Formats: sequence, C-alpha cells, structure tokens
Amino acid sequence: MFKKILIANRGEIALRIIRTCREMGIKTVAVYSVADKDSLHVRFADEAVCIGKAQSADSYLNIPHIMAAAEITNADAIHPGYGFLAENANFSEICAQYGIKFIGPTPEMIRKMGDKITAKETMIAAGVPCIPGSEGLLESLQQAEQLAHEMGYPVILKATAGGGGKGMRVVWEDSELERAYTTAKAEAGASFKNDGIYMEKFVEEPRHIEIQVAGDQFGTVCHLSERDCSIQRRHQKLVEESPSPFMTPELRQKMGEAAIKAAAAINYESVGTVEFLVDKHRNFYFMEMNTRIQVEHGVTEEVINFDLIKEQIKIAAGVPISGRNYEPVMHAIECRINAEDPYNDFRPSPGKITVLHTPGGHGVRVDSHIYAGYVIPPYYDSMIAKIIAVAQTREEAINTMERALSEYVIEGIKTTIPFHMQLMRDENFRKGNFTTKFIETFHLV
Amino acid sequence: MFKKILIANRGEIALRIIRTCREMGIKTVAVYSVADKDSLHVRFADEAVCIGKAQSADSYLNIPHIMAAAEITNADAIHPGYGFLAENANFSEICAQYGIKFIGPTPEMIRKMGDKITAKETMIAAGVPCIPGSEGLLESLQQAEQLAHEMGYPVILKATAGGGGKGMRVVWEDSELERAYTTAKAEAGASFKNDGIYMEKFVEEPRHIEIQVAGDQFGTVCHLSERDCSIQRRHQKLVEESPSPFMTPELRQKMGEAAIKAAAAINYESVGTVEFLVDKHRNFYFMEMNTRIQVEHGVTEEVINFDLIKEQIKIAAGVPISGRNYEPVMHAIECRINAEDPYNDFRPSPGKITVLHTPGGHGVRVDSHIYAGYVIPPYYDSMIAKIIAVAQTREEAINTMERALSEYVIEGIKTTIPFHMQLMRDENFRKGNFTTKFIETFHLV
Repeated sequence: MFKKILIANRGEIALRIIRTCREMGIKTVAVYSVADKDSLHVRFADEAVCIGKAQSADSYLNIPHIMAAAEITNADAIHPGYGFLAENANFSEICAQYGIKFIGPTPEMIRKMGDKITAKETMIAAGVPCIPGSEGLLESLQQAEQLAHEMGYPVILKATAGGGGKGMRVVWEDSELERAYTTAKAEAGASFKNDGIYMEKFVEEPRHIEIQVAGDQFGTVCHLSERDCSIQRRHQKLVEESPSPFMTPELRQKMGEAAIKAAAAINYESVGTVEFLVDKHRNFYFMEMNTRIQVEHGVTEEVINFDLIKEQIKIAAGVPISGRNYEPVMHAIECRINAEDPYNDFRPSPGKITVLHTPGGHGVRVDSHIYAGYVIPPYYDSMIAKIIAVAQTREEAINTMERALSEYVIEGIKTTIPFHMQLMRDENFRKGNFTTKFIETFHLV
Repeated sequence: MFKKILIANRGEIALRIIRTCREMGIKTVAVYSVADKDSLHVRFADEAVCIGKAQSADSYLNIPHIMAAAEITNADAIHPGYGFLAENANFSEICAQYGIKFIGPTPEMIRKMGDKITAKETMIAAGVPCIPGSEGLLESLQQAEQLAHEMGYPVILKATAGGGGKGMRVVWEDSELERAYTTAKAEAGASFKNDGIYMEKFVEEPRHIEIQVAGDQFGTVCHLSERDCSIQRRHQKLVEESPSPFMTPELRQKMGEAAIKAAAAINYESVGTVEFLVDKHRNFYFMEMNTRIQVEHGVTEEVINFDLIKEQIKIAAGVPISGRNYEPVMHAIECRINAEDPYNDFRPSPGKITVLHTPGGHGVRVDSHIYAGYVIPPYYDSMIAKIIAVAQTREEAINTMERALSEYVIEGIKTTIPFHMQLMRDENFRKGNFTTKFIETFHLV
C-alpha cells in the first residue's frame, strides 16, 4: 500500500481524500495556492506545500509545481480528485514517468474517453447504445427522411455551427420534416452564416442517469448502481440521488451491463462513471464516461455502505476487486451547497463565513471544507458543502434533507440553501416527476 | 399520528427527538429551564415554554410545570427522552390522566422493571437467566458450601451493608470457602457493624452487553441486536458498539430470545433495552431493563439502518411493528464526548465554547446540542456530544472514529476527546479484549 499520497486538489474533495487516507494509515501531502493557505485541507494534511498563485493555471493546474511538491515530500502516489488535472492524460503520463502512481486510469484510458468521437466509436463497437444520428451533415431532404425512418421519430435537427436553440427543430412525424428541414437550414444560414445541419434521435423527457463502475488491474469490472443527476442548472448538477426514482430492476440490470461493457471496452482501471441519457420509454444512450471520482460519489457510498475513495486507492495499489455488482440498500439524496445567490441568478458570493452551524444526527452526512471565519476565495468553484441524507425510502430521505437544510446556518455569504429547501418541498420533485429540463421552469419564491 | 409532541428533556436527546418529529411532520414543543434559554433544542423546536429554574427539580423534574406547558401548547403526546422523568411511572400515569400520550411504556411496565426485586422475580418466572445467589443472608458455612455447589464456583461473598470492596471475597473452590467466609464476615462486622453476608455467582471477566427490543400495542415483540457497553468508568458508559466483538451468532440468538422473553413477560410496549452481564464462558445474566430510549440507541440505528425514535413514536401512536428481528449489517461505535477534564479525574468543565468545528464525511454521525458561543451550564449531565463511526468492519469503524476525533475542535472547555483518542489506539481495545473492568487500569498519558 502507498505510504504517502499527494492530493493535487483543494476544497471538500481534498479533505475527503485526506479523511480516507487517515483512516487507511496513509500519510498525506496537501498542495495549495496562496489563496488557500488557511484552507482546511492544508490544516488536516500531514504536510502541505504551496504551489503557486491563486489562479488555477499557476497552482492547481501547474504540473511542474505539483510534481516538484511530490518529489520534495517523497509522495509515492498522487490523487487528482475531480476537476483540475483529474482527466488530464498528460498529467497521468508524467506521474508514470516520475515513478509516482497516478490514482486513476492510465493515460490511454483517459484519452479514449476524453475524445468524444473516439469514445462514441469505442462504445458503438462495444455494443453500448449511443444516441443515433447522421454521420456528418445532412445532404438532402431525402437523406433526412431516410435517416428519420431508420432511427424512428421524434428526431431533432441541429445547426452544426449552432447554439442557443437557433437552427434547431424537433420533428415528430414525416409530414413535419420538409418544413422543419427548410426552416432549420434557413435559420442556421441566417444566424451562423453556415447552413449545415445534422440529425439526431430526439430524447424525450430526458433524464441524466449515470452508473458508477469500478475496474481493477486484472480486468475485473463491476457496477455499483446508478445515480440520478437530472436536477441540473445550465448543465451543472445541483441534486443527485440513488436509486433513481425512474429506475426499474430491469433497467438497472440493462444499464449496469452496458456500463460494464463501456468500462471493459477500454480495460478500465479505477472507479469511474458512465453517464447516460434515459428517455421516457426507458431507452438509454451513452453520453460520456468520467474517468475519475465524481462530486456525487458519496450518494453511492451511502446506499451501498462502501468507501469509494478507499476502493480507488486500493485499485491503484494493485488490490483486486471482488467483481460483485451492488444494489442500493438505502435511498440517498445529495444537495450541493454553493456560495451563490439563488435570488440573483446564482451569482457567486465569495467572502467570509461569519457564523457556521452544521447539521447532524441520524441519516445526515456533511462533506465540507468551510469553517467559521473561513474566507471563500473568488478564484475557484463555488461549491462549499455537500449534504447527503440517507433513509430507507426516498420520501424519508427528502424529509431528512429538508430537516438538515433547516438546521444549516451559514452567515456572511449567500448560499443555495433556500433553493434546495424549496426544491425539497416541490410536489413534482417529491413525486420523482422531473427531467433534465426541470430547473428551467423552476422559480424560486 | 400525533400532531404535536412536547419533549420533556433538554440537550442532545431533545434535539434528537425534534429532528425525527420534523422529519415526520409533527410539531414540537421544547421545555426549558432558565439556564437553557439559549439552547439549541429551544431554537429548533416549533414552540418553547420555560418551565422553571436551573435546578432539575424546579424544571425538568417538575411535573406540574411540564403538564401545564403541554396543556397550554395543546400537545397530544410527551416524549420524555432519557433520564429526568423517562422512567417515572407516576409521570406516565399523570400523562394518561391528562389524555396526553406518554411516548413510552405504561406505568405498570415501568414499575415492574423499576423495582429490582420485582424485576428479578418476573425474569426468573419468565425463564430469563439471572445471576444466581443466596436468598437473603447466609446462615452458616454449611449453607454457603451447599449453595456454592448448586451454583458452581467461582462465587462471591458480599457484605449486605457493604461497599468499596469491604467484606467481599471471591471464592474459586471448596478449599478456600471456610477462610473466605470467616474473614468476609469479620471484615463486614468490623467495617459496617453488620456481619451479614450473602453469596452470588461470580461473573468472570464480565461484559456489559445489552439487547435493544421493541414491542407494540398488539403484543408483538422483536429484538434489534446487541450493543456492547463494557467500556465504563464508575458505571458510566463511555463507549458503545454494535456488534459486540465478543458476540457469536449462537449467543446473539440466545440473548435475543431471552430479551424478547423479558419484554414479553411484561407485555412491553415501546422501545427498550434489556441489559445483561456476560461472563467469559458466554453465560449471560439479566441485570435490568431500561424502559426508555437509551443514550446509545444511535449505535443500533446505524447498524440496522433504522430510526428508533420514529419507531418509538409510531408504536405510541398505535402502529404495529413487523416483529422481524434485526441483525447488524455494519459495525458502529460511539464515543460520548463529555465536558470533563480527563487529566483531572474527569472533573466537569462547564463554560463557554469559544471555537467549534464538527467532524464530517463518510461514516461519521454527530449528535450534539452545542454550538460556537454556547455556554454549558453546570447543572446537568456533562455529555455534550456523541460521535458514531460506521463502517463495514470493526477495525475500519475504529479508524473512522480516530479520524473523526482528530477533526473535532472544541475550545474554551475541557473535553474527553483526548481520552477517546488514546482508547481508539489502545491495542487491547482494538483487539476487543476488554471487560467492564477495563477502564480501571487504563491510564491517560
């Protein structure tokens, strides 16, 4: 097992990793920017090295400085956390060159999943369902019609140069296609000076459901069930839960098998996540694979009673996994608490936390790097805490979350707690009646 | 279900009950003494009523004031917590007279278990093993010898007026009996001016292992496995865990059955605990039954994923229980954090908490009523927090506890955290190699 792990990250995930290392008897090295000198991850690590200025490019993304810190402190492994260098294949490669174990997959695996086109090709070859679409641009209405028949309605036409919904049309049947094709092309041409359009299968009432997987160095791959991350704002996840309220045992088995296929196709080694879009008919389509630990991994930990960071470290150290797939035995839900003003378009709200009281009790887990007196720097991600509520049923977990949120006192800055409070009381949310579009029409009162 | 519950208690257990009530959508009424006006249970309850002066006799033990508070606020049930009035049969009776549901057993059940002689008689009649002993005083050496043969060596002779080990002798075989009998009698006479002695079976290497039970209003009784509470100081529990490191599946089944017999013998209704002494040969003997929720109930909640306060409230409201017995699926360990100076004979250390940082993360539950700026009053119990660590194995749970303790920052007062830190590192504790005598020879460094 590793003797000393350098954590190339900050905030709650750095603390999260330090916690597991401490429990495993592994020494830790924190790295920090000058803006983070008073951070909890610096205080709780066994050693700490300043690696540069506040801006991430000068510190948390500065590979030479991080490698120097690892050399100086004699760390035998580096955990990248999420974000920053976690999916940087070059960093993984450089670690290997230095003889320092990168706790994550090999550079090849990262590259295969990091490039979207390669990833999709690999998935199709492995038999993992991807969203059907035209290969390249549509050349004619006839071709569009033929493709639509092949993949089945509804389909969506999109401008290749597009964005913001311009040049985009959903088509539900043959009779609508000609008009949609013509207007989408015209709109694209007018908006982007490029009238190229392509076609994809339209995913109705999409949900973001991802499967946690783990693979070891000996080719064993398993899945650890799903997380539903449909509650998003501008593609940023806000709430995650497991099991998904939309899940069925059959769908879990099918998605689990597909996720294992996806990971096995690149001989995946480490923990990782295969993200799918699921439509209202429970068809599911590969979106991407995250070759790292995710923010929301704790949700899975709570429903399967399993420390994923420990598993990740053990896999990196060459310990084989059992290969058993896990089913959720509890229901867990996570709210990401951000230092943002939900009443002001979620504008970041850095600054000093003057008063802090953390919720506790049965069924409540809090992962956070904040403390009373801590000054949230403006340079990084605005997430300041994750609350996870766990109970036997979804309804109970939501009730526990509502209770925990009501106990959380953070003064001096604005946070997204009021947003989450309202969400937990929302009737449609409580019914599990939501898609990735849910937050678009959710208005804070 | 109840609409409004008055909580006739303070501190962490009042908060614990408020949390579950909030999750169940039940309104809460806090009662408080003038010394507790800034307490968290007062802040978190929906309503709060001051019931008297700081001294418990004037407030938390003042039945007329508590009943008046319940009447004024129109509470339809009272939860007594633990301590104070929790095992006061008169209080339970008065609640019934007022038409307010006492969340706990009936006065008759409390009385049957509250009186030690009645309890022992009831247990013997129900076939629950009790510590064998002479009925009354020993009349002669011959009688002593005959009794010792009946119950088997080792036995212990005790002075009826005794205390502090005076007039007490452990006897391992026939050859020692005459001398022990004579010296114990003489010592008792000299020390207490009363040379009456009695005999009991001597429990070798005793462990305190208790079984959590639940019974409903329809006669169904089940057990929820054990807690090992052997780590005690002057009969005060310091650390509790489940499963017991001394437990075997066979012993759990036997003790579970005995605990169910004990509860069924008094038609027990509510959650409760049957406490046993277990000797090194895994013989077990009934000590007493606590007819209330216990401080350490959270340990069981974490290993069976079950909210015991919710269960208790549901039982009181007439909801039937499933009757299923539960086995631990995890390992949980609890440290009681007291405002005491472990380096100064555990002298209470009331006062103001100037800095507070609470541990968090995977596998850590904290139940506490303290906050930064809170002044611990000198009038009540010195327990200020309970930390529970949960993991798949005992070793991992201890590692998680050690990690959580290392993160806990409480400044301004002395706490027992350093004691627990050392205990978690103790080799014998880690091996599960301890009895109720363990702390007698444990020296803080």
